[in-house]
Amino acid sequence: MELNDVVQRVLGNIFVELEASGRHVHVTKAQAQVLFGHPLTPKRPLSQPGQYLANERVTVVGPKGQFENVAVLGPERSAGQVEISLTDGRTLGIAPPVRLSGDIAGTPGAVLVGPMGQVILNEGVICAKRHIHMTRSDAARFGVQDKQVVALRTYTARPVVFEDTVVRVSDDFATYVHLDYDEANACGFVNGDLGRIVK
Amino acid sequence: MELNDVVQRVLGNIFVELEASGRHVHVTKAQAQVLFGHPLTPKRPLSQPGQYLANERVTVVGPKGQFENVAVLGPERSAGQVEISLTDGRTLGIAPPVRLSGDIAGTPGAVLVGPMGQVILNEGVICAKRHIHMTRSDAARFGVQDKQVVALRTYTARPVVFEDTVVRVSDDFATYVHLDYDEANACGFVNGDLGRIVK
Repeated sequence: MELNDVVQRVLGNIFVELEASGRHVHVTKAQAQVLFGHPLTPKRPLSQPGQYLANERVTVVGPKGQFENVAVLGPERSAGQVEISLTDGRTLGIAPPVRLSGDIAGTPGAVLVGPMGQVILNEGVICAKRHIHMTRSDAARFGVQDKQVVALRTYTARPVVFEDTVVRVSDDFATYVHLDYDEANACGFVNGDLGRIVK
Repeated sequence: MELNDVVQRVLGNIFVELEASGRHVHVTKAQAQVLFGHPLTPKRPLSQPGQYLANERVTVVGPKGQFENVAVLGPERSAGQVEISLTDGRTLGIAPPVRLSGDIAGTPGAVLVGPMGQVILNEGVICAKRHIHMTRSDAARFGVQDKQVVALRTYTARPVVFEDTVVRVSDDFATYVHLDYDEANACGFVNGDLGRIVK
């Protein structure tokens, strides 16, 4: 084994890599058809297996403002969803609840505008609750279970311990911490920074 | 002593109230003259004794973008300074270092535009390092000293432990934690929320 591989393997027993998720949208197949006139097309893969950044972009409109050119992530899902930071919420005039992805019942809505049409989401605007994607083998190694709430220390320019961080375990995942940009900036995150589960 | 006073006094022995500082600008007397044609005029007092939000507002211009209607805080200081979040820095195209207020040597500059003129700051753009203002008596009670670095837990919707939080002690201060809006949103702060020094 090369030295670099050894280092990576040791680090992987202690740390989890951090990623910052910018504002983005998920759409259904029907919504993609309305917005773009065709299904989503992949531009580049994301860290989570099978997930991709689409070539398609939308404008997200709220009561007080809008964001143009917002990323759409594929593949299509069973419900439309808009994931924004609390900072973004102030710009849009929407107060998103802090929820795990997919947990959208009773959340605020927004309007999505694409090049071919627009879609009114009656619900689906959330601030993604910080979470750790983990494979089953990594979860076993770190001694944590699906849905477990942990505290995560960031090894970043402005170190922070994020309490109430939810672990999500699936062999469909790659092991990464997902923060939103408020959290990423609050801890001074740059690409490649690491975190550690501290309790 | 009224029950409410007792409660306040007990809480004040354990917690410190949090405040979020939005983006703002400090100017010198000469800069105020150029920007507004007169000295700053107070609109309302801030939590720190003698400090105030001015009636005057400026536009802050960076290489990639600008913010209009930015708060100016008085009284005037010996050097101009722009305090923004890292999120704001992305909008302006300026990467502010994380510094304590006043520590501006070698920091990036920006242009301030007022109704009467504009001022080029060759330096002075910072992201304010999170800090706790404390009176001497509160510092003695909490067992901390000026410039001490502590960790602060927030009792907020998204609890966080902010490491590397600097204590600043002066009898010119009122006791408050100052976070920027990235930090405030990362912990889900709302007005009245409390923090506790945990180490």
